[in-house]
Amino acid sequence: MKKIIKNGCIVTATDTYDADIAIENGVITQIAQNIIDLQAEIIDAKGMYVIPGGIDPHTHLDMPFGGTMTKDDFETGTMAAAFGGTTSIIDFCLTTKGNSLKSAIETWHAKAEDRAVIDYGFHLQIVEVTDQVLEELPEMITEEGVTSLKVFMAYKNQFQADDETLFKTLIAAKELGALVMVHAENGDVIDYLVKKAVEEGNTDPIYHALTRPPEAEGEATGRAATLTQLANSQLYVVHVSCAEAVKQLEEARKKGVDIWGETCPQYLVLDQTYLEKPNFEGAKYVWSPPLREAWNQDVLWNALKTGQLQILGSDQCSFDFKGQKDLGRGDFSKIPNGGPIIEDRMSILFSEGVKKGRISLNQFVEITSTRAAKLFGLYPKKGTIAIGADADIVIFDPDEERIISAETHHMAVDYNPFEGMEIIGEPISVFSRGEYVIKNKVFVGKAGKGQYLKRAKYGEALSVKSKSLTTK
Amino acid sequence: MKKIIKNGCIVTATDTYDADIAIENGVITQIAQNIIDLQAEIIDAKGMYVIPGGIDPHTHLDMPFGGTMTKDDFETGTMAAAFGGTTSIIDFCLTTKGNSLKSAIETWHAKAEDRAVIDYGFHLQIVEVTDQVLEELPEMITEEGVTSLKVFMAYKNQFQADDETLFKTLIAAKELGALVMVHAENGDVIDYLVKKAVEEGNTDPIYHALTRPPEAEGEATGRAATLTQLANSQLYVVHVSCAEAVKQLEEARKKGVDIWGETCPQYLVLDQTYLEKPNFEGAKYVWSPPLREAWNQDVLWNALKTGQLQILGSDQCSFDFKGQKDLGRGDFSKIPNGGPIIEDRMSILFSEGVKKGRISLNQFVEITSTRAAKLFGLYPKKGTIAIGADADIVIFDPDEERIISAETHHMAVDYNPFEGMEIIGEPISVFSRGEYVIKNKVFVGKAGKGQYLKRAKYGEALSVKSKSLTTK
Amino acid sequence: MKKIIKNGCIVTATDTYDADIAIENGVITQIAQNIIDLQAEIIDAKGMYVIPGGIDPHTHLDMPFGGTMTKDDFETGTMAAAFGGTTSIIDFCLTTKGNSLKSAIETWHAKAEDRAVIDYGFHLQIVEVTDQVLEELPEMITEEGVTSLKVFMAYKNQFQADDETLFKTLIAAKELGALVMVHAENGDVIDYLVKKAVEEGNTDPIYHALTRPPEAEGEATGRAATLTQLANSQLYVVHVSCAEAVKQLEEARKKGVDIWGETCPQYLVLDQTYLEKPNFEGAKYVWSPPLREAWNQDVLWNALKTGQLQILGSDQCSFDFKGQKDLGRGDFSKIPNGGPIIEDRMSILFSEGVKKGRISLNQFVEITSTRAAKLFGLYPKKGTIAIGADADIVIFDPDEERIISAETHHMAVDYNPFEGMEIIGEPISVFSRGEYVIKNKVFVGKAGKGQYLKRAKYGEALSVKSKSLTTK
Amino acid sequence: MKKIIKNGCIVTATDTYDADIAIENGVITQIAQNIIDLQAEIIDAKGMYVIPGGIDPHTHLDMPFGGTMTKDDFETGTMAAAFGGTTSIIDFCLTTKGNSLKSAIETWHAKAEDRAVIDYGFHLQIVEVTDQVLEELPEMITEEGVTSLKVFMAYKNQFQADDETLFKTLIAAKELGALVMVHAENGDVIDYLVKKAVEEGNTDPIYHALTRPPEAEGEATGRAATLTQLANSQLYVVHVSCAEAVKQLEEARKKGVDIWGETCPQYLVLDQTYLEKPNFEGAKYVWSPPLREAWNQDVLWNALKTGQLQILGSDQCSFDFKGQKDLGRGDFSKIPNGGPIIEDRMSILFSEGVKKGRISLNQFVEITSTRAAKLFGLYPKKGTIAIGADADIVIFDPDEERIISAETHHMAVDYNPFEGMEIIGEPISVFSRGEYVIKNKVFVGKAGKGQYLKRAKYGEALSVKSKSLTTK
Repeated sequence: MKKIIKNGCIVTATDTYDADIAIENGVITQIAQNIIDLQAEIIDAKGMYVIPGGIDPHTHLDMPFGGTMTKDDFETGTMAAAFGGTTSIIDFCLTTKGNSLKSAIETWHAKAEDRAVIDYGFHLQIVEVTDQVLEELPEMITEEGVTSLKVFMAYKNQFQADDETLFKTLIAAKELGALVMVHAENGDVIDYLVKKAVEEGNTDPIYHALTRPPEAEGEATGRAATLTQLANSQLYVVHVSCAEAVKQLEEARKKGVDIWGETCPQYLVLDQTYLEKPNFEGAKYVWSPPLREAWNQDVLWNALKTGQLQILGSDQCSFDFKGQKDLGRGDFSKIPNGGPIIEDRMSILFSEGVKKGRISLNQFVEITSTRAAKLFGLYPKKGTIAIGADADIVIFDPDEERIISAETHHMAVDYNPFEGMEIIGEPISVFSRGEYVIKNKVFVGKAGKGQYLKRAKYGEALSVKSKSLTTK
Repeated sequence: MKKIIKNGCIVTATDTYDADIAIENGVITQIAQNIIDLQAEIIDAKGMYVIPGGIDPHTHLDMPFGGTMTKDDFETGTMAAAFGGTTSIIDFCLTTKGNSLKSAIETWHAKAEDRAVIDYGFHLQIVEVTDQVLEELPEMITEEGVTSLKVFMAYKNQFQADDETLFKTLIAAKELGALVMVHAENGDVIDYLVKKAVEEGNTDPIYHALTRPPEAEGEATGRAATLTQLANSQLYVVHVSCAEAVKQLEEARKKGVDIWGETCPQYLVLDQTYLEKPNFEGAKYVWSPPLREAWNQDVLWNALKTGQLQILGSDQCSFDFKGQKDLGRGDFSKIPNGGPIIEDRMSILFSEGVKKGRISLNQFVEITSTRAAKLFGLYPKKGTIAIGADADIVIFDPDEERIISAETHHMAVDYNPFEGMEIIGEPISVFSRGEYVIKNKVFVGKAGKGQYLKRAKYGEALSVKSKSLTTK
Repeated sequence: MKKIIKNGCIVTATDTYDADIAIENGVITQIAQNIIDLQAEIIDAKGMYVIPGGIDPHTHLDMPFGGTMTKDDFETGTMAAAFGGTTSIIDFCLTTKGNSLKSAIETWHAKAEDRAVIDYGFHLQIVEVTDQVLEELPEMITEEGVTSLKVFMAYKNQFQADDETLFKTLIAAKELGALVMVHAENGDVIDYLVKKAVEEGNTDPIYHALTRPPEAEGEATGRAATLTQLANSQLYVVHVSCAEAVKQLEEARKKGVDIWGETCPQYLVLDQTYLEKPNFEGAKYVWSPPLREAWNQDVLWNALKTGQLQILGSDQCSFDFKGQKDLGRGDFSKIPNGGPIIEDRMSILFSEGVKKGRISLNQFVEITSTRAAKLFGLYPKKGTIAIGADADIVIFDPDEERIISAETHHMAVDYNPFEGMEIIGEPISVFSRGEYVIKNKVFVGKAGKGQYLKRAKYGEALSVKSKSLTTK
Repeated sequence: MKKIIKNGCIVTATDTYDADIAIENGVITQIAQNIIDLQAEIIDAKGMYVIPGGIDPHTHLDMPFGGTMTKDDFETGTMAAAFGGTTSIIDFCLTTKGNSLKSAIETWHAKAEDRAVIDYGFHLQIVEVTDQVLEELPEMITEEGVTSLKVFMAYKNQFQADDETLFKTLIAAKELGALVMVHAENGDVIDYLVKKAVEEGNTDPIYHALTRPPEAEGEATGRAATLTQLANSQLYVVHVSCAEAVKQLEEARKKGVDIWGETCPQYLVLDQTYLEKPNFEGAKYVWSPPLREAWNQDVLWNALKTGQLQILGSDQCSFDFKGQKDLGRGDFSKIPNGGPIIEDRMSILFSEGVKKGRISLNQFVEITSTRAAKLFGLYPKKGTIAIGADADIVIFDPDEERIISAETHHMAVDYNPFEGMEIIGEPISVFSRGEYVIKNKVFVGKAGKGQYLKRAKYGEALSVKSKSLTTK
């Protein structure tokens, strides 16, 4: 049935204007000053922003880590995402040495297909570049639509790849049309510092931060950028946390390197002192990279504002405080890394960013949705409000207030790192391909409704055009 | 009469999609997949881009300079602009010490009102900040809608203002909601070098470039940025020509300074060697700042791509080669500065930028139109294709070819600095508020049809919204 | 009578070794392991460093400022200098528009000649570059040996010169062999901020710092460096106080600009909070540039260590707290700028620098003496301990302790900005051309014994050699 | 027998003055204006500079590489060094995994002890940091006086160490008082590029340069600097060849990192085009890092001048063109890396540096001798002309001319990379501990006369003093 969203204020990465939107077959078909259709279902959006559904390009759902599993799977994770205004996610598919990429992707499909309530895609981890990997990659990219490859420079003896692997991945990605993503921290240095701290009895959560210094992130970011430059390839640096890394991104872009940077809500509003909370509560704030000294927040906000960072991911990777995080009592290095962020990603950026004048409303849309759609090959079906796009739409009340709390959130974990934070601006209703997932703050979606997203090759969405002109 | 532009590919600063556009009363009222209205005039745009009309924020029409007048007035200038796809200009209103700002603006209204074929606004030059100036400024900004103030750091004993004047202008602008614009070159240094060159008999056009070194531009740019930072104000640096200046902009933005940079087509595609053309032809390429060594072009293109420069202005300031430029035979310092650029601004950026893969199609729209609309208070009426916006629209054929030549251009001057340059991509038809100005490459507009643009205060258009939400 | 300094540890800007020194006719004639001469006067320096007498290139003695005179004249000032281990000073000769340079120098000779207890030279202020100035300059430089020219970029409507004057001075200096010195602060900005603060009733001493932001110093430093680059000249930036200025020096040196930087003890060990002392005591700490936030100290120390700053001057410019500094009660802008530093310059650098491991012992000699001798044309007579050099020698006890206090200092003023500071390392005896000025901490010199120093042109001392090879 | 060097012009890293020098028992005992001793042997140095013997901290004599041996052993190598004015070398002792450090040092002692004609020390390569290595290191450093440790970041699967090894070496060095030296190039990237080039048939010598891009050096330099910063240790970067690496050194020093940089003559005067010489002659110019584009030379010279680079090493590593270099015909990756530089190191720096005004005479001494003596624990016995120092002295004629040629050089190889280069300034006589090695350009030394140099720990020579004051 045709739907009409009336009286709202449409916001895209560029524009802000009042108009009605008509949706047919899950797609936006008309935008006009006053659409009248007695047949259609009318959704009143008076006083609301009507924005593109968010795209979270950085989630770890149903993932094994450090002998345990992330608490949120594709069902609870995507449901929580939807409550927060996110209508697409891209999750990281892990791989292991010697095993086929295809089997890894199949494992991830099995995790997602009956559970996701919104659309989803996969990034593919690269741990080695063997002949077998090079043989499989074209199919992964072209057939499976997995057009982004993740390399870890940290987690020694676990995920960490060496420079040879990173460089070969960059070269293959360039040839095949994929975007390489890196976790940029120097794992060798960190491994040494962690072992030394534990040996010396420095086992509290704060040592997680102290053994992963910002210089180790800056160094790895600069190294990855240089390898990208030499491979003439493209790079996306995930979860940038500090000034040192931002500087390296700036330097690389000045040289013309095709490089992009993502930060996460936790780095924008929390800081290293959280790791010092008593009663082991610091463990709730253990991410890698770690939270930094508070002054880095200004640097990150300014980088978002000036376009030196382009995307906000959640790095959703949730563990219960009780039963999971406390595996690291007495040894911070055993605390599972990560936290529940998928639900509040957009609210925090709106409330702390737009409402406080740090970024514009249009930048909010760009950072939470449009840019990710373009970089990860989802545009123009996702990431905007325009004729022909999927009706992944959020009706957003800019004045609605909320206090973040584990008691009310929809993620499956027993704590929330932003507990008690006051938020202004909330999604009221959320549509995925024209269907309600959240209706007036109530979940009305269904597990398995989410569709797998085969994504276009890198660059095709960036220089979107010409396609529509082929008919000439 | 209602118009429908059918089958085109709409391009904004963010989006690229196929849809029809309906125009009523000069305004865009509907965008949809297939608009059918038998009453309406149908314009077929199949195979065409449909883009927002360009905004040229840097023109000098009908302006006295060095004892002569620019050749193009508001009639020939705006007609040529329209041929090139530009539908709004903002011209510089000169002032003189001791005289009222209001009288200056009136003079400029008189130049424009019966002649302009497209819409126009004014920037206001500030040569001194006296009590009288401070008294007049609020009216200029609030009533007249002249929300940008120009200060020259060069042209000693002529236009040049000192740091005190610049600083006071920045402080007043912050308070009143205006954007300060600077011509950033160190006039003291240049004045010395010019006099010395002439004294030593170095009078050929190339000495125009050699006496205005890039360091003098970089220095002044950095100085203006620092003054802006200290005044907590906002700055727009016109005609950035070189790496030294780009670097200063980058440094300032890193510190959070609210600073913007404009470059011009000549700096992107021409270089200093043009000034060495024989038979005094070098005089055709005399701009201030001057053309630079060719390697600066890569820096400028990269700055446009990465958002360190945001806007392309023309710095239209045209003089005939014969009878005007040759006032400087035997003394380069007497060559009138400037050239005819208004017509080819957009074509050059499309052909050299989009077609050659240096910038994206959406960036082309951002750089030629949207960003200027936002910075200079014209958005959302100008600068985009969205419901409620003025139908300032260009139907642009991306494959049409042309060779730039003074024989075919529409500016009133006897030469073209890009003579012989091959262009791919041309406006076919151009609408101003829904009415044809150019129809299938023929001028069908009329002098005096252009309307004066009272512009919003700085910042209002940037954080566009909330307005539409006041009804809540 | 021949003197032998025995058993000391000789320290130069490069070397540290044990040896005896023989002095004849005021000159060092022999350095050897064990000099025996029964005729000679023996000075035992066992356990002592034997270092070159300090050179203070930045003093204002007997100078009018703000309607009053600096308290220390050439007698008290040079006596205090000698107590601190300084054996040569270079004082600033002020000039005024329209008056001859020669008369200014004569005025300064009259101030110094019967009073100085150590050797002295003059820098010459340039307030304008008229034909008369250009006519007089060669004599000043070549005959008078005044080979350094000072330009102020601050003190609007008083000392401040414009960019034209600075640029012309740089060009003349290059041609004539002089070193240009600048006070680098943007006087236009500061003038505005000062007037505004006073108007708004913000009249306490702390506003002296708040109205002279570090950005104003950084900007002027960068501007002066650029002008030097364009003039292909040489520059010495006096009293560098902050990170912003250091950065500009670094950038300029990277470009090959011949630029040097001086800092002063107050910037190394005091900070902006001193200006907030109650009971108007903040006035004691009013210098221009002002004291900065404390973190700048690390930047300055690191710049000294890495050679980005090369010299420590005192900027001696002393006023009594009672009767002079208090001219500014109720209006900070009327507080005479400056303080009594000449005596403790070297002790503070030794105690805080060498003893705390921030710089090496050899760097201490370089920074307090040798580099100034070379830059200002005094080398090889001054600035080192080597055969043929003047016996300007300090016997320095590295373990002697002292507490700085106005009660014990030898300057003519009623307070000391370093009151209570513990110093380790003190001059015990000081020789000027082989004669005691200070003997076992007692003054034994005499007013008028100091000789005027005609200095060599810039660059001659830097590339010292070839001269001695002319005999070949 | 006592010797007196008369009438020379003594030059140290700081001073330049005329005096006589007396030498007894191999040590400098007196410096004075006119030393008269009828018993002594008089050496007339009229018209000559008398400078400290050079210290070459970077030689590979009698070293296996790529299946062959360097042509010069400790006899021919040190003899050639002496001809060039060098009186001490520090050679690299190679080690292999699993074998003891002590046995490696013994091997190197065996190579040197009967052959060296001048004094020599050893650096020790670290390929792994095992418990055994950590156990042996203190003895190596404290007993053997091997106070510098070399780590390679390049030569994958051969010399290359990973970041863990480098980091652990830095930490151990800090604790034990050693200086870590790195060959900074990213070996992973280079290995890939080399293999790819060879596979694609790009086998000419020029591909040696093209597969080792400057970015790979810059990256590794920055990485090593960051690891040094995190280890709070000290680093010496060998053979800096390009702007990218210099920039990283500058950035690190700004952060206070204790880092030093060495360049080599080949990078100062040759460039990448030499690798394109026909008839495989490009192989003569194969070094790692490779020769760079010529503009880098200006950057290196400026870095020497401003102190961002501090030392000139030779990286002596000589192979015959015929029989050795031609192992790489048809495959540039098999060309033995290195060249014969030890003899001309100082002459080139004097002729191209001092004579052409790029550095001062004192800097020449600092760069070729004094700084190395201090960093590598040889000062104050080596590296200067002062009482108590070894009489390692060069009598240097600044006007003597020579043309470099393999026909006249004293190294054991069949070509010279500087063939045909005109040199002004040559050593005439060279003394090692007071004995002639070169007398009026004739070799009069003897194999085995050179002594092994046990070197002081890092830092002891830097803060040289206090020692002589313990007697107090």
